Parts: sequence; structure tokens; C-alpha cells
Amino acid sequence: MSRGKDARPFNIAIAGLGTVGGGVARLLAENADLLAARCGRPLRLVAVSARDRGRDRGLDLGAVRWVDNARALAAAEGVDLLVEAIGGADGIALDLAERSLAIGRHLVTANKALIAHHGHHLAVVAEASGATLAFEGAVAGGIPVIEALRGSLAGNRLSAVYGILNGTCNYLLSGMAESGRPFQTVLEEAQALGYAEADPGFDIDGIDAAHKIAILAALAFGARVDFKAGYTEGVRAITPDDIKYAAELGYRIKLLGLARLVDGRLEQRVHPCLVDARSPIARVDGVLNAVVAQGDFAGQTVFEGSGAGAGPTASAVVGDIVRIVRGGGGPAFSLPADQLASLPRAPMEDHSGASYVRLRVLDKPGVIADISAILRDSSVSLESLIQRGRAPDAEVAVVMVTHECRESAMQAALCRIAGLATVTEPPLMIRIEEV
Amino acid sequence: MSRGKDARPFNIAIAGLGTVGGGVARLLAENADLLAARCGRPLRLVAVSARDRGRDRGLDLGAVRWVDNARALAAAEGVDLLVEAIGGADGIALDLAERSLAIGRHLVTANKALIAHHGHHLAVVAEASGATLAFEGAVAGGIPVIEALRGSLAGNRLSAVYGILNGTCNYLLSGMAESGRPFQTVLEEAQALGYAEADPGFDIDGIDAAHKIAILAALAFGARVDFKAGYTEGVRAITPDDIKYAAELGYRIKLLGLARLVDGRLEQRVHPCLVDARSPIARVDGVLNAVVAQGDFAGQTVFEGSGAGAGPTASAVVGDIVRIVRGGGGPAFSLPADQLASLPRAPMEDHSGASYVRLRVLDKPGVIADISAILRDSSVSLESLIQRGRAPDAEVAVVMVTHECRESAMQAALCRIAGLATVTEPPLMIRIEEV
Repeated sequence: MSRGKDARPFNIAIAGLGTVGGGVARLLAENADLLAARCGRPLRLVAVSARDRGRDRGLDLGAVRWVDNARALAAAEGVDLLVEAIGGADGIALDLAERSLAIGRHLVTANKALIAHHGHHLAVVAEASGATLAFEGAVAGGIPVIEALRGSLAGNRLSAVYGILNGTCNYLLSGMAESGRPFQTVLEEAQALGYAEADPGFDIDGIDAAHKIAILAALAFGARVDFKAGYTEGVRAITPDDIKYAAELGYRIKLLGLARLVDGRLEQRVHPCLVDARSPIARVDGVLNAVVAQGDFAGQTVFEGSGAGAGPTASAVVGDIVRIVRGGGGPAFSLPADQLASLPRAPMEDHSGASYVRLRVLDKPGVIADISAILRDSSVSLESLIQRGRAPDAEVAVVMVTHECRESAMQAALCRIAGLATVTEPPLMIRIEEV
Repeated sequence: MSRGKDARPFNIAIAGLGTVGGGVARLLAENADLLAARCGRPLRLVAVSARDRGRDRGLDLGAVRWVDNARALAAAEGVDLLVEAIGGADGIALDLAERSLAIGRHLVTANKALIAHHGHHLAVVAEASGATLAFEGAVAGGIPVIEALRGSLAGNRLSAVYGILNGTCNYLLSGMAESGRPFQTVLEEAQALGYAEADPGFDIDGIDAAHKIAILAALAFGARVDFKAGYTEGVRAITPDDIKYAAELGYRIKLLGLARLVDGRLEQRVHPCLVDARSPIARVDGVLNAVVAQGDFAGQTVFEGSGAGAGPTASAVVGDIVRIVRGGGGPAFSLPADQLASLPRAPMEDHSGASYVRLRVLDKPGVIADISAILRDSSVSLESLIQRGRAPDAEVAVVMVTHECRESAMQAALCRIAGLATVTEPPLMIRIEEV
């Protein structure tokens, strides 16, 4: 308890006043009384840096020092903690974080790219100086899942952590499911509503979710965060028909980030999944996020809430600040950096699971026989195969569900199936995930 | 980070080796390597106290000091932290907690009765000595909701916190919904499976949930924990018919604990509720618990998981221990004890809401007119009234949904309706809750 011991204000600087930085500044102002009471001392925003000083952010920054060069904030005088809200994995964000931590100044960020790429290095720098590095806002916005894994569930050996980590993709999949409209139409609507970026690749190709699952995997399994070690696949290929077929089979389609320990090797992957329609995660719709942690003592714990936006992210950043002001320590990734393992990774070819496969084929005699023969030759065993509709000599969909098989066998079969003259477009395979 | 600075073992004593204490001892043993790494020093169980020393608990306690008188553990030498796992709001548990905190020894407990009744007093004692009082396991078992409210969401002004806080009641309501069997039958089945106590009153009369919502209300609203200030109603009166009628109206019946700030007054209540079947909380079935927190910045966050049992509770207790070993401080109820307010309470008579009412009446001409007249005279306005079936001169059910009205008006109307000669049993009223 710092009350009494140290009642001088705790001084905060924010680099970047966009959605995240602006949200943090607003929270610090609006809930200043509450924060002072909960921290035992006032939290004071003393310095900021942003590209456009003139822009109206709806904030009274009159008493705050403006620093034109964000890099200068790293060592600006009279600052106890720096909030990095510039964004990007490298460049100024990395530079600032490194310098700030190197001189023993606490750093809080919601920058998932930065942590997914350089989190281990930054944790090493922080430990050397005794500063705290915190990044609750980097995963699942306002949902306090980082602190849950790092602290509250620290007594557990975790076997899996997974979730809906990208609100944009979840909005698109939910939108297709509700309206039956195609991907491109729903994407344009999401862009108009501000739920998708003008350049949506980062989200819809799964990269954003891959950053987040890399961070969760590191925390859950005591591994060095390693973005590049993961497998990543986005949602562009999914059609409303697939969502409908999946629903008829009792599934919903979700883009999941998953991390699991399989025989001592770490599986870290992002791809669309068919999940049981009755599972808690299946019902998380729209821009919401959800994370599931499976522990040996706690069992399954599910966290659900707002995964992005100014408010939720600011809530997460300020939660980190409160913890730091209260003296709550512990290593950034739960283990001291030198004990974080470079865990062997389970390559995707070795993954084993059941799959949903949707083909478009010409409705001719022998098509199904050709496909079945290829699957048999590749040791992929079928649970069901349904030709959707009848249209002699025209295109129809064929929907298959396989039993569990190796990814490499599945891919080999799909490659041969794609080569059949009667198969009119590349097969779509979606993994079925037990969640 | 305590590594290097202080690598001597952190010594723990456990008072009580029942479900909770035994679970904690097992976790400390089974995950000792993990905990040592995450804490930067070994956690060592050094002393225990339990009624029956001879009982086989599947634990190797050979190296552990046995103390016959649990009270002696409060000041036993060489102990850094005491886990109170004896239970009960008073007696030895209170005595131990008080003495331990008074001499500056950290205390971790999962004892909701103790915290709901004496939490404020214990927080005062802890602050005076500089010890930490922690009770994550007291609410919702393995779900880290206490630390979320106390820390991660501390930047938020909360407007509501509520949830399914009693697994036994949720199991009974889910069981009736699934099987259509009556309360007593499902209760006996739950008792046989160990999901309900032989004497189930504590759970099914809502007292256990009332302890928990008292604790959550204190944390969420900076109030002094006050068990007695709440309204409490259990689930004994609910029939499978009510669950069926509610489902037809688009609702599910859940026992909720709810805490809300209404015009600066604290509503703290436990009672069965009709909740929208599409809400996240409606789908939480069986013995699971769920807690929802509504914050001004984070928005709605939902936590779901195992609310009881040895494993989940041990996970919560050890999560508290890890935080304490890492130096994570801050007041037990998020605010310094002297700043916790004795908030004015909103009495239940002033509560305002819509209700479901189920009557059993004799199917005679004029019954509905009599009931309608009473409601009109009491200023209770009806959204719908349905007589279920036809049985001239015999008993039928009448199901009504009211618009929002004051609790006092509703109760007055129910009292008069109960007095009608044609009404054959006391009316059942269940509040409709927007969640």
C-alpha cells in the first residue's frame, strides 16, 4: 500500500494520441478521483506527444507538456511511466519502449505487433533495469486475460488457450451468418461502420489474431514469444454457403487463435474453425472477443467482452498502470525472461484433426467416385459426404466431413482433388476444433 | 521481481485440510516447479492443522509440521502466509484471520461467509499491520473475478456487477429445465451426485450467493462489505412449469446475485430472475458460475467457469499467493479501508422492474376480472395475461407479465390476489432482469 508512504502524484506520459492514447488520456481525466483513491495517490498526465498538435481530441491538455519528438518522451524528466500508443512493430514504438525500459521507466502498451515481435527482448531489457513492462491491452482489449494468465491462473499448468481474438473477422462471420450476404458485401458494410479498416488485410488475413495468440502462447506455456513460429490463415475464402452447411452439421465458423501443448511441442495457429454450436465460444458474435483458458486446477475459464476500441483498450492500459502504482510486480511473461523456453514448435503438417471440406464440382457421373478414391489413397477417412442439390452437367457443391487425420495427408488429398477436371474451384478446407 | 533479491522459500501454513485446504496443499505439491519459477522462489508448505490427523488425503505431509490447535497457526514461527480453510463466518476462522493479520502475516482465504460478515474489519486490521488480505476463492471459485474488479478493471466506474454465483442452484434450475422433473427430485439427484449438500438450505435459500454478491458489491462500488444490507430469496418455489412458461416467453430462469448503483444508492440482492434467453448469462448451465461487470470504459465483461470444488478454489487461493509473493499490493477491497463508504442502500420496496407472475386459480367465470381489477387498483400494468389450458371449476395456471412497476405496488397486489377465494396457492412472482 503506497498510501501515506508516498502520496506524491504518479506521473504519466503518453506517446501517441490516436484511438488508444486519446482513450487513456480521457480515462485518466474522467476517472481521476476514482484512480487517486484506488492508487493511494493521484495519477497525473504530465507529457504527451502526437503528430498533430492542433487536432481537437475533446481533451483539456492545457496543463500537459507537449513534446514534438516522441523519442524524447523516453527520457523526459519527471515521468514515472510511459504509455506507448504509437503503434507498429518497429520504428518509433520499439525505440521508445527500449529506451524507456532501459532507464528503468515502466512501460505500458497495447501494441500487439510490438509485443509479438519484440516482447522477449523488451522483457529482458525491463528485467535488467527493474522496470515493469505491461501489455494487457494488446490482447482482447478490455478483457483482463493477460493478467489472468500471468497472475490469477499462475498456479495452473495450462493445456490450452484459445479464442476469438479479432473483432473484425468475428463481425464479418456473424454478419454473413445472419444475412446470408457474401463476404465482400459484409466487409464493405463493416468498413462503413468503422468495424473494418480501409485496408483490412491485417485483420482478415489473420495477422492481428496471430500477434495475439503468439502473446497468449508465451504467457500460457512459459515460451519465448515468437510470432513467426505460428501458422496463419484468414477468412477471405469463407462463403455464406459454408456457414449454412456448417450450421446444418451443428457447427459455427469462427476465426480462432489457438495455442496448445502437444507432446511437449507448441501448436500456435490462427485459422477458421468449425466449433460445436453449443460451445460457449460459438455464441460470441459481432465485434466481441472471447478467450478460453484450460488449466489443470481451475478447469475451463471463459472471458468475454469488448476486444477493441478506445474505451476497452484504455481500461486495460489503466488497469496495468494501477497495478504498477500499487507495486504489483512479477515478470512480463509470468516467468523471468531467462527461463522462457524456446519451445519446439509442432509444425502444421503434423497437426491432426477432423475437417470440413467444401468443393464445387460438375454434377457428372463418377465425380464422387474420383474424390472418394483420392481420399482413400491418401488415408483420409470420411464421416460424411453430401452433394448439395442436383444439376446435371452444371456446378453443385459437395460437402464432406472427414474423421481425424494428419494435416499433411489432408493437404495431399486436397491438392489431387483440386486437379480433377470436374472440380471447378480450389477446395475449401476448414478444420473442426473441439472447444 | 523477487528473484535474486530473495530466493529463500516462501513459507505457507494451511488451517483446515478439507476440500479447500486439501486442494491447496495438492496444488502446491503438484505444481511446485512451476510455482517456484513463476514466483522466483519456492513456495513451501511448512505447517498444517486439521481435525483428523490420521485421515488419508492422498498427500505426502511428512515434512510438514502438524499443529493440533488451529489457533496456534496464527502466530506459528517461520510462516510468511496463512491460508484459512476452516470455514464459517465466526469462531476459529475469524479468530485466526484476525490474529494472523494483526501480526502482519498475509492471509488468504476462500471463506465467503467470513469475508461477507467481517471483511471490512479484517481489511482494517490488515492495513494497520501492512499485511495483505486476499480472497479470490471466496467468489466464483476458479474464475478470477475479484482480481479483475480490484485491479484490472480498476480504471472503470462500474454501474453493475451481477452473476450466477451458486452452482447448486444453477444445477437445479438447469436440471428442471432439461428434464421437466420437479424441484425435490432434481435436488435429491444433485445430493446423490455431490452437487448439493445434505442440508441444502445455505445454497437453495440464496445465502451463499448473498455472501458473494455482498463481496462483489463492496469491490465494485467502494462500499463497506455488508451482508445484512442485501435482499435474499432462494429457488425453492420454482417449478418446471415456470421454467417452461418462461421459455415460451423468451426467457430463462436463473438465480442471480445483483449489485447496482441506482441514484447513488446501492441495490444488493439475490433472487430468481427471468433473463433474456439470448443473453450470455442465460446459456451458463449446470454447476458453472458466471459474473458480468459493466464498466464505463471496458463495457460489458463476462467471466465464466467453475465456481466451486477443490481444484478451482485451490487455483484461486494459489493465484492470490503468487500475487502476494510477487509483491502485488493494494487494498483488499481496492480502496483503503477508511475510504470505503457506508453507501445508502436502496430498499427492495423501492426496486422498480417488470415481473413474471404465475398463479394457480379455479377456472371459474370472473377470476381473471378479479385479478385484473386488483392489479389496476395497485397501479400494476399488464403486458400479457395467459390462462394456461381450460378446466372448468378445476385448477389452472395463469401466467402474467407486468410492465415495470414498483416492488411495493407489486407486493401489495400479490397480497390481495393471494386472498381471493379462487386463487388456490400463493402467487409466484419472479423479477424480469435486463442483463
